[in-house]
Amino acid sequence: MTYVAPVKDMLFVMNELAGLADIVAYPSYEQAGADLDLAPAVLEEAAKFNQDVLAPLNWIGDQNPSSWKDGVVTTTPGFKEAFEQFAAAGWQGVIHPTEFGGQGLPKLISTACLEMMNSANLSFALCPLLTDGAIEALLTAASPGLKDQFIPNMVAGKWTGTMNLTEPQAGSDLSLVRTRAVAQADGTYKISGTKIYITYGDHDMAENIVHLVLARTPDAPEGIKGISLFVVPKFVVNTDGSLGERNDVQCVSIEHKLGIKASPTAVLQFGDHGGAIGYLVGEENHGLEYMFVMMNAARFAVGMQGIAVAERAYQKAVQYAKDRVQSRDLAGSPGPVAIIHQPDVKRMLMTMRSYIEGSRALAYYAAAAYDAQHASPNKVSAKENQELYEFLVPIVKGFSTEMSIDVASLGVQVHGGMGFIEETGAAQYYRDARILTIYEGTTAIQANDLIGRKTVRDGGAVAKGIAQKILQTEKDLAASGSADAKAVLKQLSPAREAFETSVTYIVTHAKTDIKAVYAGSFAYLRLCGLLFSAWQMARALLAAERLLAGDPSFFDAKIATARFFAENQLPQVQALATSILEGGHSTNALAVEQF
Amino acid sequence: MTYVAPVKDMLFVMNELAGLADIVAYPSYEQAGADLDLAPAVLEEAAKFNQDVLAPLNWIGDQNPSSWKDGVVTTTPGFKEAFEQFAAAGWQGVIHPTEFGGQGLPKLISTACLEMMNSANLSFALCPLLTDGAIEALLTAASPGLKDQFIPNMVAGKWTGTMNLTEPQAGSDLSLVRTRAVAQADGTYKISGTKIYITYGDHDMAENIVHLVLARTPDAPEGIKGISLFVVPKFVVNTDGSLGERNDVQCVSIEHKLGIKASPTAVLQFGDHGGAIGYLVGEENHGLEYMFVMMNAARFAVGMQGIAVAERAYQKAVQYAKDRVQSRDLAGSPGPVAIIHQPDVKRMLMTMRSYIEGSRALAYYAAAAYDAQHASPNKVSAKENQELYEFLVPIVKGFSTEMSIDVASLGVQVHGGMGFIEETGAAQYYRDARILTIYEGTTAIQANDLIGRKTVRDGGAVAKGIAQKILQTEKDLAASGSADAKAVLKQLSPAREAFETSVTYIVTHAKTDIKAVYAGSFAYLRLCGLLFSAWQMARALLAAERLLAGDPSFFDAKIATARFFAENQLPQVQALATSILEGGHSTNALAVEQF
Repeated sequence: MTYVAPVKDMLFVMNELAGLADIVAYPSYEQAGADLDLAPAVLEEAAKFNQDVLAPLNWIGDQNPSSWKDGVVTTTPGFKEAFEQFAAAGWQGVIHPTEFGGQGLPKLISTACLEMMNSANLSFALCPLLTDGAIEALLTAASPGLKDQFIPNMVAGKWTGTMNLTEPQAGSDLSLVRTRAVAQADGTYKISGTKIYITYGDHDMAENIVHLVLARTPDAPEGIKGISLFVVPKFVVNTDGSLGERNDVQCVSIEHKLGIKASPTAVLQFGDHGGAIGYLVGEENHGLEYMFVMMNAARFAVGMQGIAVAERAYQKAVQYAKDRVQSRDLAGSPGPVAIIHQPDVKRMLMTMRSYIEGSRALAYYAAAAYDAQHASPNKVSAKENQELYEFLVPIVKGFSTEMSIDVASLGVQVHGGMGFIEETGAAQYYRDARILTIYEGTTAIQANDLIGRKTVRDGGAVAKGIAQKILQTEKDLAASGSADAKAVLKQLSPAREAFETSVTYIVTHAKTDIKAVYAGSFAYLRLCGLLFSAWQMARALLAAERLLAGDPSFFDAKIATARFFAENQLPQVQALATSILEGGHSTNALAVEQF
Repeated sequence: MTYVAPVKDMLFVMNELAGLADIVAYPSYEQAGADLDLAPAVLEEAAKFNQDVLAPLNWIGDQNPSSWKDGVVTTTPGFKEAFEQFAAAGWQGVIHPTEFGGQGLPKLISTACLEMMNSANLSFALCPLLTDGAIEALLTAASPGLKDQFIPNMVAGKWTGTMNLTEPQAGSDLSLVRTRAVAQADGTYKISGTKIYITYGDHDMAENIVHLVLARTPDAPEGIKGISLFVVPKFVVNTDGSLGERNDVQCVSIEHKLGIKASPTAVLQFGDHGGAIGYLVGEENHGLEYMFVMMNAARFAVGMQGIAVAERAYQKAVQYAKDRVQSRDLAGSPGPVAIIHQPDVKRMLMTMRSYIEGSRALAYYAAAAYDAQHASPNKVSAKENQELYEFLVPIVKGFSTEMSIDVASLGVQVHGGMGFIEETGAAQYYRDARILTIYEGTTAIQANDLIGRKTVRDGGAVAKGIAQKILQTEKDLAASGSADAKAVLKQLSPAREAFETSVTYIVTHAKTDIKAVYAGSFAYLRLCGLLFSAWQMARALLAAERLLAGDPSFFDAKIATARFFAENQLPQVQALATSILEGGHSTNALAVEQF
C-alpha cells in the first residue's frame, strides 16, 4: 500500500477541533441526512477508493504523462477508467446541492475526501477540483437555464469543468485579459482568443468539457471592470441535452512540466474558425467577481493539495526510515539500527508530521467556518464565520503549499541518495508540490490579499478577533497545568503577541508606507500560518489530554507533536515579526539597476 | 549570455574579507608567482571560459543526459570537446602543486574558479571536482611511485578521478563496506565488489579514469578500522606510462536522476572476471583517513556548488523579473511595470542575493583559512587557521547547500507559472540543487561532525574563538555609527549571544543528554551558517562604507544587502537557539511505532 488515509487523525480533527457535531446539526445538513455516524462512513469509503484505485496510478502518471497529438489529449493509461469509477461512486457530488444530484454534505466532510484524493493522486485530483470550482461559479451566477443545462452532468462526473483566466500577456494580472466575446442575435456570444495554463483543458476522461472563460465584450470598460464570464462547452449542448457539434475551441499544445505530469496543462485557442459559442454567466462585466467564487473554492482546495502531497511524502519517508538499517544508535547499540532511531531523522519526520497535522487542523477548522457561514441559522454567527473563513483562505492556500515544498524536500532528504533516484518516487512529490505555490494565485497574491482585503480593510478586526480566541486557548493551557501544556503556552503567548503587534503595524502603516508593509506580506502570511497551526495543535493537545485513556499511543503522539511544533517551529514567529516591523525598507532599498 | 560571473563581488570578498594580500605574500604562493594582480587576471580568464564554453552546455546536458549502452557511457554532446578545452587551458591544475604540473595557486583563488565552473555547469564541474579530491588523497598518502604514475596526468586533465565509497548496503555508514582486496605476490591487489553512486564512474571525456576505492583485505579488522584505499585505474598503466589492458571494472548501469542529469552516476562492478588490479594507497586499514582528505576537499567544493547554482538561479530570476511587465506598481503607476517593482518580488530577489553573498563571503573566508593553514610561515597562525577551517567546512557544505535548494525554489517562484515549465530552465536548478545536501555527506552528517568533532571535542574553544571575532566586528559596527551599521549591530549582538549560549549548552549536555543535543544538530549548523554569513556581511558593510566613493552603486547595494540579511534572515537564529536549548526532547518523544 503506497498510501494509507489518516482517517483517525482526520476524524479527531473534525470532531475535537472543527466542531463536526454542531455542523451536522445545522438544518440543511441534517435534511441531507448528515449525522455523527456519517463522517466515519464516508471517510472509510473514500479511503478505500483512493488507496485502491487512485494511489497506484500516481507514479504511473508521472512516468506516462498525458500526451498531445493533432489537437487531442490522451491521459495516462488507467485514468479514464478510474474517472468512470470516481463518477459512478458519486464522489464528484459530495459537496454539491441535492437538487442537482449532489449529496449536499458539509465542506468539512468533503475536505477530508479532497485531502485523500490529492494524497492518492495530485494529477488526477486536479480534474474534479476544477470541476468543483466551475460548479460553484455556475451555482452562484448562472441563469436557471444554464444551471439545468450544465450542472447536473458536472455533478454526476459525466462532464468536467475548467477555469480559463490566464493569457500569454496576462498572468496574475487579469486586467490585461484580451479574449473577445461578441454578442449574437440569438443571445449567445462568439468567443475568440488564446488561453494558457488550462488544467485539463483537453482530455479523454469525460464526454464533454465545460470551459468557464474570462473575456471582454467590444464595448466593455478597460481593466478588470470590463471582464465577463462565459460558459464555452467543448461540444455544444442541444436543447434536448444531447451533445451537438464540436465547438470552435482547440487544444493547440500541452506543456512539458516539472511535475503533475499526468494532468494536461493546455493552451486553448478559441474562435479560429469563426468564433466559439459561449453563454454569458450572470451579467456582463461582472465576470471577475463570479470567477472569485471559483477561485476561492479552488484556493482552499489547492491548500489541501499541499497538505495532501505532504502527507504522502511523509508516509513514504516514515516507511523508508523504518526499513533502512544503517549505522549504530547514537546512544550505542550493538549493531546497526533503522535510521528512524537517528535524532536528525526524527527531527525531519517530526517536522514533516507536525506541519501536516497543524495545517490539516487549520484547514479543517476553516472548512467548518465555511459550513457555519452557509448553514448556520444564526445570522450573526454566519457572518462571523464568513469573515473568519475569508481571512483563513489565503493562509490555508499560501502556508500549506509553501510548507508542502519543504516537507516534500525533507522527504527526499530522509531517503538520502535513494531520494535523488527517480525510481524511488520521493522526488515526484518534490516536483509535484512545486506548482502549488504558483497556481490559483501565487503566494505573493495570497499574501497581498491577506494584508489588503483581509487585514487592512477592516482595521485588523478579524485578525484581532482570532488573537482573542488564541488567548482563550492560552488560558485553557494554563488551566491544564501539565508540563506539555506549559511548554506550549511558553511559546504560544509571545507568538500571539507578535501577531498582534504585526497587525497593528500593518494597519497603521499600510497607507503611509505601503511598499514597506507589503514587503512583509509573505512574512505576515507565514507568521499567521505558523501561529494558527500551533494554536490548533495546542487545542489538539488539550483534547488529547482529555481523551488520553481511550487511545494512549495516538493521543500521546498528538501531545508530543503539538509540543514539538511549539518548541521547534513556532519560535520562527518572532523572526518573521522582526522582518515585518523592521525589514521592509531594506527589502526595497535596491534600485532595479542594482540587481 | 545565460551566466555572467560575479567577478566584482568575488574580488571584493577576496580582497576585503578574506585577506588576499596576506595570502599571496606567503612564500610558497609568492614563489608560484602569485601577487595581487594575479587574481583579477585568473578570474577574468575563468569567467570567459565558463561563460562561453560551459554555461551554454548546461541546459543541453539536462535535455541530453549521459547515456549508458553495453557498459559504455556516452556523455552529453559537447562535453568531451569542452573537457579538452578545459584541460588544455590548465584549469584542472589551478590549485595543485607545480611539481606535478599544476599552478600551485591559493585555494582562495581556485575557489572563485570553482564557483564559476559550477554556476556555468554543475554536471560538468563534478568531473574535475572529483578529480581534485582524488589528487588530494594521492598527494597525502600515495607512495612516490604511485604519485608519479597518476598525478601528472590527472593534473593535466588527461585522466579523471572518482571516489568509490558507497555500496548498496552501506550508504553513509562506511563500516559496512564489503568490497574485497586480496594481496597478490607482485604487490598489487585483486579488487572485487559493487560500488554505487559513483559520479563520472564511466565516461568518454578522458583517456583513463582513476578510481579510488575503499575495500577490505581478508584479515582486516571489522568496521571502519579495517578499510583500505586503493587506486584502480580503468585502464592499467604500463611501466612506461602508456595505457595497458582494460582493468576488470565495469559500469553496469547509470542512474535515472532528478537532476544533474548530464553527470553519469554509475554502478561499478569490480572483479567479475578474476579481480580488478588495484594499488594500495598508503598503509592498509588507514583508508578512511585518506578518504577523509578527499572528502574534506569535496565537501568544501560541494558547498561551493550550492553557492554556484544559487547564483545562477538568482541571475535568471533577476533577468525575468526585469523583463516581465505585468500589474501596476503598488504605490500607483499609470500602466503595468516590470514585476521587479513588486515588493514581494524584491523580497524574493533580496533573499536569494543576500544568502548567496553571505555564504560566498563565508566560504571564501574559509578558503583563506585553508591557505593560511598550509602556507603561513607562522606555526601558531597555521594551527589556528586549520582549526578554523575545519570548523567551517561542515557549515560551508551544509548551510550553503541547504540554502541553495531554497534559493533555487525562489527562482522558480519568481517566474510564476513559467517557472514550472521545463523549457524555461528555472526548474533545472531546483532539480539539480536537490542532490547537494545529500552527496559527500548529508546535512545530518555535516551537523553531527560540527557538534561532535568540531564543537564538543575541544569544549567549544574554536566556536567561542569565532564568537570573539564577531564581537570585534560588533565593536567596529558601533564605531561606524551609521544607521545601517547600527541596524545590523542590533541583530548581530543577540544572535552572537544565542550562538554562545547554544555552544555552552551543547558542550555541557553532549555526554549526559546525547540524543537531545544531536536532535538540535541541524538547528546548530543552520544557526552557525546564518550568524557567520551575517557576520561576513557586516564586515562587508564596513568595508563598503570605507570604499563607498569609489563605486557608489556597488557599495550601496552591498550595504543594503547586508542590512536586509541582518533584519530579514538573521533573526531566525533565536528560533534555532530555542530549538537547540528546548526542543530536543520533543523531537525524540515518539516511539518508532507511533510514526
